[in-house]
Amino acid sequence: MTESITSLQNARIKNIVKLQEKSAERREQGLVVVEGLREINLAIAAGLALDSLFYCPELTSEAAVAAKGDSVFEITLPVFQKIAYREGSDGAIALFKPKSVWLSELKLSKNPLLIVLEAVEKPGNLGAVLRTADAAQADAVIICDPKTDIYNPNVIRSSVGCVFTTQVVSCTSEELKLWLKEQNITPYAAALPAKQLYHQADFTQPVAIVFGTEANGLTDKWLNKEIPQVKIPMSGKIDSLNVSNSVAIMVFEAMRQRDFK
Amino acid sequence: MTESITSLQNARIKNIVKLQEKSAERREQGLVVVEGLREINLAIAAGLALDSLFYCPELTSEAAVAAKGDSVFEITLPVFQKIAYREGSDGAIALFKPKSVWLSELKLSKNPLLIVLEAVEKPGNLGAVLRTADAAQADAVIICDPKTDIYNPNVIRSSVGCVFTTQVVSCTSEELKLWLKEQNITPYAAALPAKQLYHQADFTQPVAIVFGTEANGLTDKWLNKEIPQVKIPMSGKIDSLNVSNSVAIMVFEAMRQRDFK
Repeated sequence: MTESITSLQNARIKNIVKLQEKSAERREQGLVVVEGLREINLAIAAGLALDSLFYCPELTSEAAVAAKGDSVFEITLPVFQKIAYREGSDGAIALFKPKSVWLSELKLSKNPLLIVLEAVEKPGNLGAVLRTADAAQADAVIICDPKTDIYNPNVIRSSVGCVFTTQVVSCTSEELKLWLKEQNITPYAAALPAKQLYHQADFTQPVAIVFGTEANGLTDKWLNKEIPQVKIPMSGKIDSLNVSNSVAIMVFEAMRQRDFK
Repeated sequence: MTESITSLQNARIKNIVKLQEKSAERREQGLVVVEGLREINLAIAAGLALDSLFYCPELTSEAAVAAKGDSVFEITLPVFQKIAYREGSDGAIALFKPKSVWLSELKLSKNPLLIVLEAVEKPGNLGAVLRTADAAQADAVIICDPKTDIYNPNVIRSSVGCVFTTQVVSCTSEELKLWLKEQNITPYAAALPAKQLYHQADFTQPVAIVFGTEANGLTDKWLNKEIPQVKIPMSGKIDSLNVSNSVAIMVFEAMRQRDFK
């Protein structure tokens, strides 16, 4: 029988709030919070191990989620409202054990297109990049020297679940540079001082396009003579694109050059 | 002599907080709050009328802002911290009287490129679109039937001041459609059911590319037989780009077709 939780002080409920708020808790417990039926089902489809599922019968049914067993809890509306992170959420929250994917485990297509973010800071930007990666079927999003937990609730939300449909890897810049060389994938550093314009670069070959942080761009790990640079020409007064927009422009230029194949 | 404000209960200080929080207040008082030296100087350069300037000597100097006179107030650090909206803000906040620009007042280039947003909802998305408009030197961003106040503090912040470097107009969809016809500017509706791919459309002529809301896309006001449709091909599992990313992809494809001129 499914257990019911009616108290806002229930230990499992208090733990969900803690996991939502603190990445250190997520790391320590090895658990992430996923809210929303679509996102939960995408996480299951992606092979993440379900730890426990909480659903509110006033808003959804247990049957909407492909989960069974001891780890399913019915919760009251006030309890759901305490743990719901999003407005207009649809009544289901689950805890999952995230998978760590290593560079060596990445499944690559014949002609890889990789999106690399050095130390991206804003969860909303990472979420938007993951949507671009899904839409363009990029092989993976690789985050070097990350400052944002990829399972931050704001990343899951702003990615509309694409964090589960795209291969995501965290590693150091050094590891990545070595691996790209082994795989014969050309890195391109997106940098304003570049002379080559992005649409004149050859993105039809295996490429990894590397983007820096919102505030400071790329570090010297990526800005050096060994790595070709490309830029998006800008002619305004401020000349500062949102990083997820820069990614979208370059990735879809690569897709256009590849005839969207 | 510059007046000093040391009390958190000062009426001007309490009013700034109110203006930041409520678009109805901004409308009623005809004032908007602009935070940050760069943004304030951009607003002045854009010709907005300065109402009053508040600066914190521990963080900045009055001289950093091109403003003089009775309407300048020195504030203490605790007062600044009460009204500062952003983290790491640089010590200056000002109130301005916003300018309303009408369609008929828009200054157009010889070959206009317009970005149209129908009822955009999220300030962060509008801010990112304004950055794209600045970088591409689009003629204007036109917001039809707006649901977001363009002078929402989050728009100003996420636009990094581009709300002051780009012409922004709010109007109804009906007004815009009539005006586009008069100006011989072709509207293209960005819509997933479109058959034409965006990179196969001719964006070298005067165009207005029209985007719908984050949640529901365009309404029937723009989805009808009179308006050609274009789409970005997507091949993922979710196929949902962030709206500012869709704008960036199409606007920079137009720029590419126009040889970035």
